[in-house]
Amino acid sequence: MAEKKQCTVIVSYEVTHEDAERFLDSWEKANDFLRKQPGFVSTALHRAVSANPDFRFVNVSCWESDDAFRSATQSQNFRDASGRLVPFPIHASAYEIVRT
Amino acid sequence: MAEKKQCTVIVSYEVTHEDAERFLDSWEKANDFLRKQPGFVSTALHRAVSANPDFRFVNVSCWESDDAFRSATQSQNFRDASGRLVPFPIHASAYEIVRT
Repeated sequence: MAEKKQCTVIVSYEVTHEDAERFLDSWEKANDFLRKQPGFVSTALHRAVSANPDFRFVNVSCWESDDAFRSATQSQNFRDASGRLVPFPIHASAYEIVRT
Repeated sequence: MAEKKQCTVIVSYEVTHEDAERFLDSWEKANDFLRKQPGFVSTALHRAVSANPDFRFVNVSCWESDDAFRSATQSQNFRDASGRLVPFPIHASAYEIVRT
């Protein structure tokens, strides 16, 4: 069961094999911005080792609170920093851990 | 960068709000089997706190190796234990952490 009120955000990205390096460059730019924002705790970008994954990249980030995450991502500065990620379809939500 | 050769498996499940409890019961049955298999390290089932997530549940599990995960999930016993999860569409892959 979740024991702390940290906010976990999981974002799955649809990226072709050919676009992987371009995606990484774009993700790093957005991440450089996010990790400097108040309430940022950690991030872990996962890359698929399977041949044809539905989601080549999945990012799992932790924030001190839901509000901290929202504040960090609702600014114009974030939109500027993450603009190059727009071409990659995403599936994103905030989560809590319910079973371990 | 990834520092160990553990295998991370991320599985995203499409589950309606109405089916959430039935999903949890089914997931627990499969998890009871998996956590007893050789090479199992940990699991963390995440439940979305957003209203209309693409994936209501995302499970992040760690295994000692890719082979351990494959062995655990390619047996008839696993198919029996996880059979009740079949109605829920999934997106699954093995991953390695490439950025933190």
